[in-house]
Amino acid sequence: MSTDVPADASHWPPPFLLYLGNAPDDLAAKTARGLVQFRPEWCVGQFRGPECRTSVHVPDMDFAQARAAGANTMIVGVANAGGRLGAEAVADIVAALDAGMNVASGLHERLASHPEIVEAARRNGRHLFDARTPPPTPVGNGLPRAGRRLLTVGTDCSTGKMYATLALEAEMRGRGLAADFRATGQTGIFIAGRGIPIDAVIADFISGGIEWLSPERHDGGWDLIEGQGSLFHPSYAGVSLGLLHGAQPDALVLCHEPGRPHMRGLPHYPLPDLAQTLEANLAAARLTSPDVVAVGLALNTSKLDAAAAARACREAEDLLGLPAQDPVRDGVARIVDRLLDAVPC
Amino acid sequence: MSTDVPADASHWPPPFLLYLGNAPDDLAAKTARGLVQFRPEWCVGQFRGPECRTSVHVPDMDFAQARAAGANTMIVGVANAGGRLGAEAVADIVAALDAGMNVASGLHERLASHPEIVEAARRNGRHLFDARTPPPTPVGNGLPRAGRRLLTVGTDCSTGKMYATLALEAEMRGRGLAADFRATGQTGIFIAGRGIPIDAVIADFISGGIEWLSPERHDGGWDLIEGQGSLFHPSYAGVSLGLLHGAQPDALVLCHEPGRPHMRGLPHYPLPDLAQTLEANLAAARLTSPDVVAVGLALNTSKLDAAAAARACREAEDLLGLPAQDPVRDGVARIVDRLLDAVPC
Repeated sequence: MSTDVPADASHWPPPFLLYLGNAPDDLAAKTARGLVQFRPEWCVGQFRGPECRTSVHVPDMDFAQARAAGANTMIVGVANAGGRLGAEAVADIVAALDAGMNVASGLHERLASHPEIVEAARRNGRHLFDARTPPPTPVGNGLPRAGRRLLTVGTDCSTGKMYATLALEAEMRGRGLAADFRATGQTGIFIAGRGIPIDAVIADFISGGIEWLSPERHDGGWDLIEGQGSLFHPSYAGVSLGLLHGAQPDALVLCHEPGRPHMRGLPHYPLPDLAQTLEANLAAARLTSPDVVAVGLALNTSKLDAAAAARACREAEDLLGLPAQDPVRDGVARIVDRLLDAVPC
Repeated sequence: MSTDVPADASHWPPPFLLYLGNAPDDLAAKTARGLVQFRPEWCVGQFRGPECRTSVHVPDMDFAQARAAGANTMIVGVANAGGRLGAEAVADIVAALDAGMNVASGLHERLASHPEIVEAARRNGRHLFDARTPPPTPVGNGLPRAGRRLLTVGTDCSTGKMYATLALEAEMRGRGLAADFRATGQTGIFIAGRGIPIDAVIADFISGGIEWLSPERHDGGWDLIEGQGSLFHPSYAGVSLGLLHGAQPDALVLCHEPGRPHMRGLPHYPLPDLAQTLEANLAAARLTSPDVVAVGLALNTSKLDAAAAARACREAEDLLGLPAQDPVRDGVARIVDRLLDAVPC
């Protein structure tokens, strides 16, 4: 994967200190963990508060140590209840700015909403970046645009779409293909250096935001667009549909976690089945991309043993006639093979 | 239709002066026209600028005359290019506040973003209301909720969903049924006295906004929810899907304008056919409302002569086996008959 710093990240350049604060569990450190996994060379250390219950396994540092180790930006990726910045976190952010780092946050609550943070940035000549604040974009127009695009879709939220999309980027780049991950969530935005937090845009601009994120390209390369949510999630399906239309995808990869008992956060909603999910996504995608095809399934088998994982992939593969792989266990080579076969570059 | 003023409109009580400013054409005065049509007893007059090219056929008045005639609130419903408030409009709004009226606006640009408007409201002790600023609502949960709900859906934007929904309210109330229009756009919000501008909410909150708008009810009555957009409009389908899921409708009415050449604003997109539109809406609605049924078609035949209009209704009726009526020409009695037959109260 390229480790170039895109121009868009010029206000929050790596390397990074990862702020974990008092994260209560592993899930709360999801953004920091994504960065360590996909951009390890950007992560010089982590800052943990006295009650922190997780680690992303990089050296512990305070703000001065991080700056001395070369950190240019502190990334606040930790989500506490309600996505709020507590008084401790605000004080830590001010201290990080005073130590000479920029600060970037993926929380719903904006850094810029705290006057003491704004003032600390000003007096130190440092930048603040709120990844959840979307850029202004036009309304979608659905006009056919040049370039090849793949979108990851899912049976549910949090099925591994970002991971699968990044794995596809790595595999395609490893084959010498032009392929670029296009981020639609805060963790992806920190990894890619740019993107759009699509769940935070005004409802009328969902498809337009994705058209902006992934404009026409003429180099024969691929945009690999990170999907969000699910057409079958009663809370968020509108986001998923607008994303699908705006992506105008040539190819879909369906992401799924076998064995999940119900839709995320909604015990009264069972998961849709794979065939139904794929058909609904293809049907909706045809509105803006009539020739869209499915090229594979990315299964998150992290809760299964090796034998059960292999069986789950085989079953999905037999059911849909598409390569099914767990990107973590198996990579995505067979999905890329199918992609290149189905949509010649 | 009830002309009670709901509590939510307490800051912008009728009667109204309708501000047309320099509206360049009839379309620009859509909100004012809707108020005159559905709440004539609230509309004491209109204010037109020197270059105004339309009228909603109520008496012309200046601000002092309107106040003397009893107007409590001036409604700014006119959309100019980009939804902006020009310098003239700002000066007029200040003058209306100085004349003693509250001011309510349906434009994207907020009244509250103009310091001179805020100051004029303060010094006169008047209220400002921005109908396009959504209230805070939770994320949708899809939990089954008590009450009966009907949603209007469409082949496209601007096919007459608001009109059809209000006509259904009038017909049902005329039969002594409890039935309440639930507004999702600015014109509807002014007519109903409350609502949510669903195209202006943050994307993650579309279905949650509709759950908030139309909560459980236990009086045996109906919520009649104003639809927006179309599942087949590449710019806005995400809004329509979230609205459909949040509405959890028992019944759908499909709205369509026969003969429309292409999707609104998108010459490269033909309209979907009626059967396809209905099936897609029913399929998506089943996620949160498994027993949803279609009960009729509301056709906007304003561009057809009487014979062609009757033919269009007959053809749609034969095609789908549902009553098809133009609410303006024919009312919606047969659709309500079918509703009461299909979903017993």
